[in-house]
Amino acid sequence: MTEHNLEDSIALLARTPASLDALLRGLPDLWTRRNEGGDTWTAYDVIGHLNHCERADWMPRTRILLDHGESRPFEPLDRLAQIQENRGKTLERLLDEFAELRAANLNQLRSWNLTPADLEKRGRHPAFGSVTLSQLLAAWAVHDLSHMHQISRILAYQYREPIGPWGRFLGVMQCNGHSAQA
Amino acid sequence: MTEHNLEDSIALLARTPASLDALLRGLPDLWTRRNEGGDTWTAYDVIGHLNHCERADWMPRTRILLDHGESRPFEPLDRLAQIQENRGKTLERLLDEFAELRAANLNQLRSWNLTPADLEKRGRHPAFGSVTLSQLLAAWAVHDLSHMHQISRILAYQYREPIGPWGRFLGVMQCNGHSAQA
Repeated sequence: MTEHNLEDSIALLARTPASLDALLRGLPDLWTRRNEGGDTWTAYDVIGHLNHCERADWMPRTRILLDHGESRPFEPLDRLAQIQENRGKTLERLLDEFAELRAANLNQLRSWNLTPADLEKRGRHPAFGSVTLSQLLAAWAVHDLSHMHQISRILAYQYREPIGPWGRFLGVMQCNGHSAQA
Repeated sequence: MTEHNLEDSIALLARTPASLDALLRGLPDLWTRRNEGGDTWTAYDVIGHLNHCERADWMPRTRILLDHGESRPFEPLDRLAQIQENRGKTLERLLDEFAELRAANLNQLRSWNLTPADLEKRGRHPAFGSVTLSQLLAAWAVHDLSHMHQISRILAYQYREPIGPWGRFLGVMQCNGHSAQA
């Protein structure tokens, strides 16, 4: 079993904005503005969601946990808030915001000098109950990875026809790892 | 149906090395040097595989297709060749090589000024038979995406215990989109 190490989580969280920026900035709209059909998200939508989570999810929940423990549940996340927040913004603007919000959040997080005892403190998730701060911060990092995973799948979906027979052999075309609402 | 546009493919292919570099360079070994169990690959192994494909897969197959059409099948890919090629190299060295190999390959590809008629030319894949150059080049781009998808899943796997109840809700933890051998 892997122990959670806060420095490992911060190392990953610090790299995600630049990685997504290098992939998506200036990429043709074919890739970034199309979804997987129906009401699924585009890569643009995913960056908007990541920004909303920087504002409303991980750090606010960390503060609630540290200030109120299990006595006050975290606020449920509004998955549609980003539609208002991002109206009229370019993808490039969203990528800039992601880098800025993430850097500010990690500066704040580091400034608290959380101890191992702090990481064992508990809060209350509105859907799955008692969680530790360690789990919350580890999940922040994996949430990034889950959306990088989703973005690579959304982009690949746009080429499902052009790749012909390769579609049966490339793992990303068989992915069913879609996130549940929580 | 999305038509294949070579400039769109090149736009993506040109960005992958920098995106993976931003994610993986300097990231702790916990993330980059662990796999998903058994004989699965680490993120380090995936970059080695991408480099081997730059040397032995996409561009050599393009040349065989343009020179020989369907009369000469592509060489099968040796998925273990990278073990020899990469022995003793650091991840940072592999990331440098990926950027260099990709840039050289895209320069070569652009220099050919391929026409729509060229893209309809056919070659012979050793596993699935007749394919067009258009399909081959589109698959090169989606192959990148498939391995970015895999890397995000490999990294997430390392935190399957620390994230506790979030594991049931994050899509990357439910992914079964593993590539077949081809």
